[in-house]
Parts: sequence; C-alpha cells; structure tokens
Amino acid sequence: MDNGTIKAAIVGATGYGGAELIRLLQAHPQVEVSCVLSSSNSGTPLSASFPHLTDIIELELTAIEPAVIKEKADVVFLATPAGVSSELTPKLLEQGLKVIDLSGDLRLKDGAVYEKWYKRAPASPDILEKAVYGLSDVYGDSVAGQSVISNPGCFPTATLLGLIPAVKEGWIDPATLIIDAKTGVSGAGRGVGLGTHYSEVNESVKAYKVNAHQHIPEIEQVLSETAGSEVVVTFTTHLIPMTRGILSTMYASVNGSKSTQDFIDLYRSFYKDRPFVRIRENGILPATKEVSGSNYCDIGFSADERTGRVTVVSAIDNMVKGAAGQAIQNLNLAMGWDEATGLNFIPMYP
Amino acid sequence: MDNGTIKAAIVGATGYGGAELIRLLQAHPQVEVSCVLSSSNSGTPLSASFPHLTDIIELELTAIEPAVIKEKADVVFLATPAGVSSELTPKLLEQGLKVIDLSGDLRLKDGAVYEKWYKRAPASPDILEKAVYGLSDVYGDSVAGQSVISNPGCFPTATLLGLIPAVKEGWIDPATLIIDAKTGVSGAGRGVGLGTHYSEVNESVKAYKVNAHQHIPEIEQVLSETAGSEVVVTFTTHLIPMTRGILSTMYASVNGSKSTQDFIDLYRSFYKDRPFVRIRENGILPATKEVSGSNYCDIGFSADERTGRVTVVSAIDNMVKGAAGQAIQNLNLAMGWDEATGLNFIPMYP
Amino acid sequence: MDNGTIKAAIVGATGYGGAELIRLLQAHPQVEVSCVLSSSNSGTPLSASFPHLTDIIELELTAIEPAVIKEKADVVFLATPAGVSSELTPKLLEQGLKVIDLSGDLRLKDGAVYEKWYKRAPASPDILEKAVYGLSDVYGDSVAGQSVISNPGCFPTATLLGLIPAVKEGWIDPATLIIDAKTGVSGAGRGVGLGTHYSEVNESVKAYKVNAHQHIPEIEQVLSETAGSEVVVTFTTHLIPMTRGILSTMYASVNGSKSTQDFIDLYRSFYKDRPFVRIRENGILPATKEVSGSNYCDIGFSADERTGRVTVVSAIDNMVKGAAGQAIQNLNLAMGWDEATGLNFIPMYP
Amino acid sequence: MDNGTIKAAIVGATGYGGAELIRLLQAHPQVEVSCVLSSSNSGTPLSASFPHLTDIIELELTAIEPAVIKEKADVVFLATPAGVSSELTPKLLEQGLKVIDLSGDLRLKDGAVYEKWYKRAPASPDILEKAVYGLSDVYGDSVAGQSVISNPGCFPTATLLGLIPAVKEGWIDPATLIIDAKTGVSGAGRGVGLGTHYSEVNESVKAYKVNAHQHIPEIEQVLSETAGSEVVVTFTTHLIPMTRGILSTMYASVNGSKSTQDFIDLYRSFYKDRPFVRIRENGILPATKEVSGSNYCDIGFSADERTGRVTVVSAIDNMVKGAAGQAIQNLNLAMGWDEATGLNFIPMYP
Repeated sequence: MDNGTIKAAIVGATGYGGAELIRLLQAHPQVEVSCVLSSSNSGTPLSASFPHLTDIIELELTAIEPAVIKEKADVVFLATPAGVSSELTPKLLEQGLKVIDLSGDLRLKDGAVYEKWYKRAPASPDILEKAVYGLSDVYGDSVAGQSVISNPGCFPTATLLGLIPAVKEGWIDPATLIIDAKTGVSGAGRGVGLGTHYSEVNESVKAYKVNAHQHIPEIEQVLSETAGSEVVVTFTTHLIPMTRGILSTMYASVNGSKSTQDFIDLYRSFYKDRPFVRIRENGILPATKEVSGSNYCDIGFSADERTGRVTVVSAIDNMVKGAAGQAIQNLNLAMGWDEATGLNFIPMYP
Repeated sequence: MDNGTIKAAIVGATGYGGAELIRLLQAHPQVEVSCVLSSSNSGTPLSASFPHLTDIIELELTAIEPAVIKEKADVVFLATPAGVSSELTPKLLEQGLKVIDLSGDLRLKDGAVYEKWYKRAPASPDILEKAVYGLSDVYGDSVAGQSVISNPGCFPTATLLGLIPAVKEGWIDPATLIIDAKTGVSGAGRGVGLGTHYSEVNESVKAYKVNAHQHIPEIEQVLSETAGSEVVVTFTTHLIPMTRGILSTMYASVNGSKSTQDFIDLYRSFYKDRPFVRIRENGILPATKEVSGSNYCDIGFSADERTGRVTVVSAIDNMVKGAAGQAIQNLNLAMGWDEATGLNFIPMYP
Repeated sequence: MDNGTIKAAIVGATGYGGAELIRLLQAHPQVEVSCVLSSSNSGTPLSASFPHLTDIIELELTAIEPAVIKEKADVVFLATPAGVSSELTPKLLEQGLKVIDLSGDLRLKDGAVYEKWYKRAPASPDILEKAVYGLSDVYGDSVAGQSVISNPGCFPTATLLGLIPAVKEGWIDPATLIIDAKTGVSGAGRGVGLGTHYSEVNESVKAYKVNAHQHIPEIEQVLSETAGSEVVVTFTTHLIPMTRGILSTMYASVNGSKSTQDFIDLYRSFYKDRPFVRIRENGILPATKEVSGSNYCDIGFSADERTGRVTVVSAIDNMVKGAAGQAIQNLNLAMGWDEATGLNFIPMYP
Repeated sequence: MDNGTIKAAIVGATGYGGAELIRLLQAHPQVEVSCVLSSSNSGTPLSASFPHLTDIIELELTAIEPAVIKEKADVVFLATPAGVSSELTPKLLEQGLKVIDLSGDLRLKDGAVYEKWYKRAPASPDILEKAVYGLSDVYGDSVAGQSVISNPGCFPTATLLGLIPAVKEGWIDPATLIIDAKTGVSGAGRGVGLGTHYSEVNESVKAYKVNAHQHIPEIEQVLSETAGSEVVVTFTTHLIPMTRGILSTMYASVNGSKSTQDFIDLYRSFYKDRPFVRIRENGILPATKEVSGSNYCDIGFSADERTGRVTVVSAIDNMVKGAAGQAIQNLNLAMGWDEATGLNFIPMYP
C-alpha cells in the first residue's frame, strides 16, 4: 500500500464477475488490479479469454496460490463458484490479506442452512462468524475496517433493499411476503449449458428453481433479523431474454393505512445518505435499463387500497450492484474511503 | 354457408390480432376469410400493410359497413381497440351476423366496472347480457350456438386457466391471490410509441399499469363467480424483451395439505377432455417458447410446505391462445364443430 | 404405403432440424411420422428432450438400426451432423428406403472438395453420384422419382435462389460475386458452446468462418454449373442475435444496363410456377420476419447506376426453407405430389 | 474556463446522442456539462425525459438561444437532426463558442452533394470550409485548435478506419470496394416509428436505404481524398435486433500478393499511436460486444488467396466511437489535451 493506493487480486477472473470487477476497478483511483487468477488457463493472457480486454489489461492468468497472492496484492476479490471460498478464505486471511467474497459461501451464518440449500459442506464456523454481510446501503457502517466481507447475492440485494425499510418499521406483514424476481442471463455465468443456450432462452420466459433457490435463506436470514422474528418468504426467479438486470417485484400486506407517497417518504428518509439508492416518484416505477452498467438500485411503489397490499419494485444491474459494484463499494467502506469512490458510472442508456 | 364452410370477416385487419387470425384461419378447413376491414387504408391491399402476406392474401382492405359485411360474411371477428365493438356489435347482430369480439368491450357484465377501468362508456346492457364469455377450455359448453362471443383477454386466459380448478375446489384461499404476469411486446399492438420503441424495450424489464390494468376486473369477475364470493386480486404485468408469449406466475395459500402432485392430478382431471391445456409433470414448469405459435396453455405447479403456498405457472402465446386461436376455438364451439378444428399447430421451437 | 400415405422416420430427432420436421409434417396430409431416432437417449420419450411436444408426439426415441427402420418407415429424413449420412445412406438404400439427407455429406459431387472443406472422409462416389441436389425451386423436376435427395444447405438455399436466374442469363459477372450472409443462432444447432451462449451472442454481431465456411464449395458448384464455367465467390457468414432467419445480401457487377425492374421481371418470370419464391416490388426489400415459420424465400433488388452493380437480397427461415421445409418439398417432388402439399404455412408475424 | 476546466452545452439533449454525451462527459476531468438544450420540453428537468439520470443530473432543459448559451458554456455539442446545425453553427461561432457537430450537416464539403443525398439545403460554403472533419484516429492532428469540428457519421467511422490504411498504401483496388454494414437500432434515434417498433425489429434482419444512404458520399469523399482519385463504393446498411453496435464488413480486391498478417502489420503500424484502434490477431475477428460502451474500434482481416480479395471487419459502439465518444476525443484534440482524456471506458462485457 502506497499513497493510499492498494493492489487487488481477482480470483475467478475468467468469469463474468471477474471481468466486471476489472471493468469497474479501472475507474477506481485508489485500486490497481495487480493479478488475475483462475483455476484453469494459468499462463495464458487474460485477453485470450476475454478479447474485449485486448490492449487494456496485459496480465496473465496465474494459478491460485495464497502465498503468491500475498506478494502481489493487498485485497482479494473472490468471484468463484460455491465451495471455493470456504476453502480459500482461511488461507488468504492467514496471509494477512483482506477478502471480499462474491460467492454464497460466507453469507449464511448457520452452516446447516448452507448445507441444506447449497448441497455441500459449509465454511468453518469461525470464518462464518468473522465474515460481515456487506449489504452496503444498509450495513455499510459495520463493514468499516473488516477483513472478510461477504458480498450479498444479486437477488437478495435487489430484494432486501426493497424490503428492509418497510419491514423494519413494521409497515408490512412479513408473513405475507411474496417475491417475484426476473433476471437476465448473465447471472448464470459463463459456463455453457442448454439452459443458457441462445436459441432456448431467446423469445422465452420461464421460472426456475421454484421454492428451491439458494438465495431464499439469505433473504430470510436478513429479514428475520430486521423483523426481530422468523420470516419465511415465497421467492421465485424467472429467466428472461436479456443479458443484464434484475427486477424484483415484491408483494406484502400493509399494516394500517399507508399510501404510495408514505412509502416513498419512508424510503427516501431511510436511504437519504446512500448515494446508490434512488426512490422513484409517485406513479413511476423503475426499469432495469435505467440502472444498466451502474451501481444504482432504483425502487418504486404502488400501495393499493383495494387489496390492502403494497407492490414494491426494485431494479439493479446484477453484474454491478448485484456483484462487482457492491463488492467495490464494500472495499471502499472497509478501507474508510468514500463509498462511492470509483463507482460513479451513469447508467448506459439505451 | 355452403357445405359446412363459412365466410369470415376480420375487422381490424391491419393490427397484429387481425394478422394472426388470417394466419390461423388459412389452416381451417371450414372457414374462408372473405373480407378484411379497417378504419384506415381502405382500398389498399392488405399485403401493403403486411408484406408477409404478399402472394398469399389478395384481399383489399374495405371500410367498416355492417350491411356490406353481411353480403360477404357469416361471422365477424372484431380485433379492434376498446370502444369499437360496443358500438359495432349491435349493428352486426341486426344483420344476422355472428360476432366474435377480441376486444375488452363485452367482457365485463357490469357496465359501471367497465367504465371505471376502461375510462370510457360501456356497451349497452342487453349486449353485455347477450355476450357469452368464451374462455373455451372452461366454458366451452356455454359457447355452443351463441351469436355473440366475448373472447377473453390474454392475461385473464393464462391466469384463469391456471387458477379456476384450485379455486373451484377450494384448495386455495382466493383472498391471498397474487398474480405476477410477464408479457412479450406484441400484446401492445402495432401502434407505435416510446413504450414499445425497440431501443427502450430491449435489454430491459419493467412493471406497468400496476394495480390499474383493465384485466384485473375481468379476472376478478370470473374468480368471484368460481369461488361463489367476491374475490379481489393483486395483479401485476411486466413488459419483457420478447415478441410473443405470456407467463403468469400465481401465488396463493393452500387450504389444508396438498402436494404438487395433488395439484397436478386435480388439474389433469379437470382438463382431461380439453385438447389445449397441458399439465406439466412434477418438477417441470412451462416456458413460453414451448407454446409459441400454438393454441396450448401449459401449466405447472410447486406446492411448498415451508410457506404453505402453491406457485402456479402458466404459459401461453398471447397472439394465439390469448387472442386469435381462442377466438377460432370459440367459433368452432359456437358452430358445433370439433373445438380443435384447424388449430393443431405444433409450437414453433426454437 | 396405404391410400397415398407414407411413413417417415426422422434420424437426429433430438436436434432442431428434427423438431422442425416433426412440426411441419404434422400438417402434411400424406405423411405420418412413424419413428424418431437418435444416437443418444434411445428408450426415452421424445417429449423428454423437447417438452413442447408433450401430449402431441408420444413416440419414444430408438437407436439407429437400418433394418428396424425398414419395418417402420418408407422414407428417412437424416437431420444429422456431418459424417453420419455418408455411412448410413448406403445401408438405408439397401433396405429399399427413400433417403432425404439434410446434412452436407451428399451435396458436393467431388469427394476431394468435401474432404478439403469438411475435414473428414467423403461418402463413396456411387452414393454421391446417386444423390440428387434438391434445390426444389430450381431443380424440382430432377427430384421426381429419386431415392436419394441431398437437401441444400441453409446459406446456399438463400444465396442460390437469389443468384441463379441472373447468372444463368448472364446478367451479372460471376467473377465479381460477393455474398454477405446473416444468420440467426438456431442454424448452429442445439449443441452447447461459448459461441452460442446467450450472454455472448445477445447484443452482438460478428463474422465467423470467414473464407472457410463449408457452404462455399456448395455455392460454387451450383453457380459454376449454372454459368458454364468455374465460379469462385467471396462468402461471409455473420451471427446475429435472433433465433431464426437468414438474410443473404449479394453483390455483383451488372453486364450491360439493367434496371431494378428488369431484375424483378426476370426473376418473376423465372420463378413464375414456383409457389415458394416471392419477388418483392421495386423499392421493397425482404425482411427475415416476413418469412418466419414458412417455406418462402423472398427476394428483392437494387440495381445502381452509380456503381454498375446490383444488390440482391434474399430472406428465408433457415429451419424451414433452409432445412425441414425444403426437405418436405423435395419429398413431395420425389413422390410426384404437389410440391406445396402440407407446406402452406403463412409466416408468423410478428 | 478555469483551471483547465471548460463548460459544455449539449443541444439535442433529449436524444440518445445527447444522453450518451452526458454519460461520457461525467467521467471527464476537464469538462463540466453546464447546460442542456432542446427544441422541445424546455423548462422541464432532463431527468423527466431520461429517468436514468435521476439524482445524477439536476439540469433543466432550456430553449436554444445562442446568446444564452454563450453565458453558460465554452463549447457546444450539437446532437441534432439534419438541418439544425447548418443554421445554428454560424450563430454559435459569432458568439465565440467552439462547436462540435454530431450531425451530417457539415461533413460534405460540396453543398450540392449534401443537397442530393440529404434532400435539403446545405450549410453555407464558408461554414463548410471552416469545419474540420474529425475522424480522430486519422485526422487527429488537423483538429488541434479548431473551432468547428464535424464529427463523422457512425457508419463512416467504422468503415473509414477499416479502409484508409489499405487505400492509402494502394494495397486494395478502390474500384472494387463493397461495404456491408450492420447496425443496432439505437442509431435510428429516439423518435418512434414502425421501423423501430419492437415487435417489427425483434427476430428480424433487413437491409434499408440500399444505394441511398446519406453516409455513402461521406465515405466516398474521404476515400477519394485518400486514394487521390474518385472512389465510388457500394454500401449497404442492415438493421439487426440489438440496441448498440455497428459491424462493417468490407470487401476489396488486393493489389499484388498480401497475406492476412501483412494487413495486420500495416494497420498496427498505421495506428500505432492511436489509443482507440485495436487490430485483432490473425484468425480473430471483432464482435460488437467487445467494444460495447467504449471508444474502441476493433479491426480484423482475412485475405483470401482463392479469390484475391481481402475481407476487413471493423466493430464500434455506434453511440460512443460512432458519435459521443469520438466527439469528446475531438474536443480533447481541439483543446490540446491527451486525446484519451475521460474516455478510458473498458467495454461492458457481457
């Protein structure tokens, strides 16, 4: 660390999450990407995997060696599949490295719950305890100074930012929560399969992992803590024919009588110091294109007297706010920098 | 009428609904499209508006004149915007023509409800009474022999086929019903606007007409009748970047203990004689691509013990089962023909 | 064979070409699909591979056994990858079966040319000689009564229909021919890979196999024969983000002075008895959507005095006219039926 | 101007070009967007037209008044339809403002040619003479210090960067040039019409303005100057179903014997000091996704011995390198700043 600049290693650099970290970090004045790592292709230039990085990033992929990483980096971003960071994080911490984990390995405090939903062995309890859940726009304060940050899932980010204020204030009944999420295909990563084959996905929409998505316990863990009692939600994900973006449509019964404007006012107050949450005006609802390429989460409301329910709609770019952008926001918070440092991307429209 | 063949007029032939009627009717062995009408472009060939019909349909567009239609046709399909058929239907009936109305004008039995949601004057009470609601796969029997059939809306079709059996049997609590629908852009018609401008819609998803969609009262009218008591639903529509297809995801609390397989069995029994409703196996949910271009409605289920709710997912092609296909199915039923006549299109995949 | 109805076997039924044959043949009054075969998944229902066929096709996949096929079928469609039909065709012929081959194995008369472009061993010379090249709208007459028909490639179909009349009449200089083709992704089949991964293909366009596409020698073989001298072309394929459709844009220097209307008149005359070639009016050029789902090939022209060149644009649905539709047209021709039998699909628009 | 920072006005701020200028300029350390102007909607916040700018840009739209602009800005970007800047530029120059014109009004040196292709009156000869053609990566040196810069068209940018080195060196025969371009829909702007209606464009590809596109004379003007003799080209544009990106595929006969690697070497040498032109390796061709959101132009080659032709493929983001990005690059050049200032956006992938 020199002059307020730190060096970052990216593990899982051949995936979309890794590529997005590289895109965003290039604009960061205090971070330099010093090494890129992958379990495959070591020794080849990163630009062979990602031609869009030609002439921009000259780094070669290297194998994942904690001691070697230590020589080159101060902080490590783990953009890896489930099961990797539960193994790797303790070794990185031993080396004195800061870890920001974008996988789901460190999000669930209860290892048994992880095992149930992820169908694999959980990280060790001490690592799970040490990891702070980096939902930046809500728990930003608790991230400061931490050395292991668990970056939230893409769906939980969109959903929790849309629900926490209302749940916290007791404005909605958590027992009635139904969440219907729609995602672009990039969330499925770069690994090929029939489910992400162009001709199968284009001109189609379908639900998947219904009542079985591993982001359900993550959402429930946070909402339960927020509500002060156990919350169980119905949560459905849908794959839609676009590359980026998540729209989460959330439904709940309203306690007492609250108007759309009441919700707007509550959320504007709750997020008033957070640079990346935008509350839409009455009558306006967000669209994923309006946040594409940026770290914003846009939220809109419709409270309905007929049904006594509120519909909350939130939109994020799953690759930015739902992954790499929030990870960098967490790094900023952990380092004590302004949380928006290097993240002021205007949405790319159209 | 000769030899069991009838002649059909299509009003609104320059819209997508009109074009789809023409596509499907060409395969119908007992119907000939004898005239195409439009409030604009009369005197020009239909293929000037729709080049894909070049060398296939040589008809010219004519102005809408009930007495003239009578000379050329036995049945009239109205694929017109709201407000047209409430005026036109009485005149067509006077001429002794059969009317199949694809607009929303004749669907709501209570004119005041129409006025509230459609923001315009309703059809006369006697026409509303005369019109039978042609949800073919449920009310097929009541369509036989009728002269005015009101073809259901695209969202109500997908939604009602997915809910009626469970509501009728009392398996779900209608007070808890939440419906989250996703539609392709063709449902918005051929009229241009920023909301259907390619660069705005592509790579984006958004909710629209939240708690204000005119299909809400239509769904409620049918479900209330089915349940035997007033049903009020939360219903949200989303525009997604594809041309055809509607996926309706429906949520409700289950009364008692029912498994996914229980729902499958119930629905298979309910629809056992209906050629166009397909119930998916346990663990499989429908995708809109699997019904594209066809008259099928595919339905799948996930009952969840954790939440006590069932998730029902139904998929249709909005242009076929949600409009022109069901209209032809209704014609078949009205004429006493096999309801599948001319409608055995295999979905176009991929 | 009974009553003018024949039985068809489809080899390669788990691919898109196989699925499309099934979709189209269902509408054919004289063909019944009696068995579906695949090198994998034998013993499972076809609808497990293709859920859109649920309740429509109850057939199980069977392994590829010529003697068994003989018991069940009169004609065999081979929708298989390169290398299969060169082996399989002789065995099917021995059984007295008619063969319609949708692969590239039997298209090139010179085995050495096949070997150069396909990088594999060619079919035996006697089979290559026996196979008739089924570009139906040009060589329809020679298909009648044949027992081995080689169905043209998708790009050659669009391109040759757009060039043959002008080359034949000597209106354009074949030495100047440049062909720039654009294809949807379904042409790449159902096998997964990074090149057809949704997130890579969507919102992108690229050229591929430049100067190396295996359809180049097929185009040259036919044009050389048409011109009466060796023709060498520049031909480039582009992958664009859509599922179906090929647009071929062709450029050549015009011999003498010919107007756009001259070309229109020439082509209308050339194709006057062919039901599936449509020549666009002066000033109008085709779009792939205008042929989607149908067996049409639409062609338009722009002759330019400034440059002395003509631009010919042709559009087909690669799955229909470029594969399954033309294969059925060839079956019709081979059987002596009306070539349009079962193929009168109106394009699905939009 | 203070401290090396200047103020910029954007005329046409409610169009896509205006929005893209705002997105990019936000990252520019030496430019502040001080006012946004439009012929409509003056007095409303820009974010009412573009919700994605909510909470980012608080400016209101103002009417176009040169004297008022002078008070607020040092440089004016004109992102306006044809016909506006020919009128407005002289007035802005009178006020001592620098003008960067993104329209086609000032690109053609010969007013008569403009009139022929644009079907409207040209700008005055003195303005046309004063305007420097800002193809930054070729004519960057001549932009320094200029006060009126005509920003190239999107198609000419992709095409000319792909052709100039080879034409200049005499490696290809300009008389044989054929250019086949493919564009995303954003190039058509935000004005609605059937040609950009989602359901018409999606799942379709078509050619448009064949032999009539107004970018033809712009390409010819530059190539003629480069070649030292009159060049006439065949140029075709295709609309493809994506939002951003242009791929230009260019064909020409090679003079003498040159390999693909020869072309690569020539272009690498020609563009060796230009930060935004990337020459692909042998065997690799560019894709538009690899430049999306960035100011890069990627170029690849395939020289073919069989035909004696070379195929050159270039890819740009039409909104960045084809419009707003190059305009900012030109501002940088005009101001004597590093030409890459504020433009180091990594392509957004996927």
